[in-house]
Amino acid sequence: MNMPTYLDYAAATPMDPAVLEAMRPYLAERFFNPSATYLPAVAVRKDLEAARAQVAGLLGARASEIIFTAGATEANNLAIKGVLEQYPGSTVLVSSIEHESVLAPARTFNCREIPVSPQGIIDLDVLAAHIDDKTVLVSIMYANNEVGSIQPIHQAAIILEEIRRQRRLDGNERPLYLHTDAAQAAAYLDLHVARLGVDFMTLNGGKIYGPKQTGILFAASHTRFIPQIVGGGHERGLRGGTENVPGAVGFAAALALVQARRHDESRRLQGLQRLFIELLEAQLPTAAINGSRKHRLPNNVHITVPGIDNERVLIELDEAGILCAAGSACSASNEEPSHVLRAMGLSDQDAQSSLRFSMGRQTNEAAIRHTAEVLASICQKG
Amino acid sequence: MNMPTYLDYAAATPMDPAVLEAMRPYLAERFFNPSATYLPAVAVRKDLEAARAQVAGLLGARASEIIFTAGATEANNLAIKGVLEQYPGSTVLVSSIEHESVLAPARTFNCREIPVSPQGIIDLDVLAAHIDDKTVLVSIMYANNEVGSIQPIHQAAIILEEIRRQRRLDGNERPLYLHTDAAQAAAYLDLHVARLGVDFMTLNGGKIYGPKQTGILFAASHTRFIPQIVGGGHERGLRGGTENVPGAVGFAAALALVQARRHDESRRLQGLQRLFIELLEAQLPTAAINGSRKHRLPNNVHITVPGIDNERVLIELDEAGILCAAGSACSASNEEPSHVLRAMGLSDQDAQSSLRFSMGRQTNEAAIRHTAEVLASICQKG
Repeated sequence: MNMPTYLDYAAATPMDPAVLEAMRPYLAERFFNPSATYLPAVAVRKDLEAARAQVAGLLGARASEIIFTAGATEANNLAIKGVLEQYPGSTVLVSSIEHESVLAPARTFNCREIPVSPQGIIDLDVLAAHIDDKTVLVSIMYANNEVGSIQPIHQAAIILEEIRRQRRLDGNERPLYLHTDAAQAAAYLDLHVARLGVDFMTLNGGKIYGPKQTGILFAASHTRFIPQIVGGGHERGLRGGTENVPGAVGFAAALALVQARRHDESRRLQGLQRLFIELLEAQLPTAAINGSRKHRLPNNVHITVPGIDNERVLIELDEAGILCAAGSACSASNEEPSHVLRAMGLSDQDAQSSLRFSMGRQTNEAAIRHTAEVLASICQKG
Repeated sequence: MNMPTYLDYAAATPMDPAVLEAMRPYLAERFFNPSATYLPAVAVRKDLEAARAQVAGLLGARASEIIFTAGATEANNLAIKGVLEQYPGSTVLVSSIEHESVLAPARTFNCREIPVSPQGIIDLDVLAAHIDDKTVLVSIMYANNEVGSIQPIHQAAIILEEIRRQRRLDGNERPLYLHTDAAQAAAYLDLHVARLGVDFMTLNGGKIYGPKQTGILFAASHTRFIPQIVGGGHERGLRGGTENVPGAVGFAAALALVQARRHDESRRLQGLQRLFIELLEAQLPTAAINGSRKHRLPNNVHITVPGIDNERVLIELDEAGILCAAGSACSASNEEPSHVLRAMGLSDQDAQSSLRFSMGRQTNEAAIRHTAEVLASICQKG
């Protein structure tokens, strides 16, 4: 059998061999608990802290602002539950196209959801109008995991800064934090937290060719929040549990690699993205591209082909060796139409005729030409 | 330099090469997100579920009762916060020698701590007397991480069962769950949940020659509790986050290996434990053994040598290539005397003259003879 054509990098990325290489000593002889006091353990602690400093450097943050977590879901939960529990009676604003790991914890509090445009982008005026005196946290994902739309985080930060200024004048001491889930953005976009203007940022190792169930929450030093997993005082008391040193070292290596290559890789994938869209326009003219064309991750092509049943098409693509998705992997098992596509105004019927292709390191022109051809043939024989 | 003599297996265990071998495909080509719908991902899902079934089999549980977590701290937090949030106004009972990852979440609720004997064992009559109509959860560790004392879990379960029966007669519908943190016990003791009579059990991969930051919470199917990390519906909605397939597969392999060898390895380590104690009695007669001699993990030797400064001795042992601990790694960085030793009635001064040696796979007679000799020499030159 030929190698399959993998076009689901938004769901999972293969680990970079250099990442596994960086982890290897900590999976073997350097297994020591970094909290132990003997020298070999102290050396492991030093490497853990070096990984933290490396991540901080890539974000323009301080090492003490990086909390290692077991992935993005935990980090999103920590930011949202942690802040809302710290400030009882406050409200949280989220975009209506957030990942489930933001929506689910947010909805357990007083939560308002900001609508998005048909292109999958939040309206900043609507955001500003929704913030009231009780809002303590705004959570907007950096780039959407389904349609790839990139949100105007920096502009949102400017709006929040103006409201903070006004609050100070009014004597309202409630903080107003900005959190962004950057899980899908990290391989392609600028992560500098001060340039973005965020107080919290979530990253995920499993989406950047790093180890599964690794990630971080960047939490700016001025933020206050309640730790969610407690006991043992790890991560400066903000997240309990014996540190996953191989995971942290692997995460740092993965983030450094994707950030070093992000300009070149974005340019390369934008070329493939353009080609894929041109081929679809020629070979499958009924297909519509979902999400902003301009403010979009370079690796995402999300389409609706009116009239098709996406589950049937996925099976046929799978049989042809092409691996892609109908929506996010996290909601693949539930039967509901995607909340992201609904929020963008697609009908349930169109949502169920939609497909996500997410490209990555191994994706090349031949794969894209092959995929467009097979897809057109499957959809048209229907 | 010679290989150091590692005697801190309670803090961290080296990964079994067979465990890494079992994980290897999932760290490389089998990286797929188990929630995706194409066949290679479905195969990965199947392997994840096989790992879950394997773990369940070793515990005499159902697969649906196993929740994969990122380690024991998360599992302990999930059991305690999950149950206490599910039943507001209830109380939790814990032993006073629990790990910080039990004590810290328990203390955020209405919590009572059950004292222990000088041997580090809870008194069952005191336990029974502390349970009132509002008690919803009792959490008692299976074996202590510092002094190795083994708690009478099964007898506690019998007491709870009698109280449950009485509650049914009284029309008190509040459940009464028994949780045990079995992180330190898993390599040596019986984990059959029905024989033990527990409703929740925590296990930790990092203490059984498995991968770091892996673990499970066994949660019996009749239990009700609030999930703590949410979003995406993973683990039957009980714990969000893309599954750590290599971690789960590695955890299952590690648990199977230690449970298969537990009788032989316990017998071997009991021999070394006896030898170590005899050598200390001969060469360092002032040393007192802490914790029950009878109800004790086979790999633990915990001593007080009156008058020594344990930090200084640890440094000298480290210089001599012997790696051990003053207490648990999780509290190594704080200056407080061990809460476990305090609860057993040791003075702060004696607590600061105490050392923990925890043995494991690589420990042999030569290592024990060498350690006893070096230790005696360091303590006596003082």
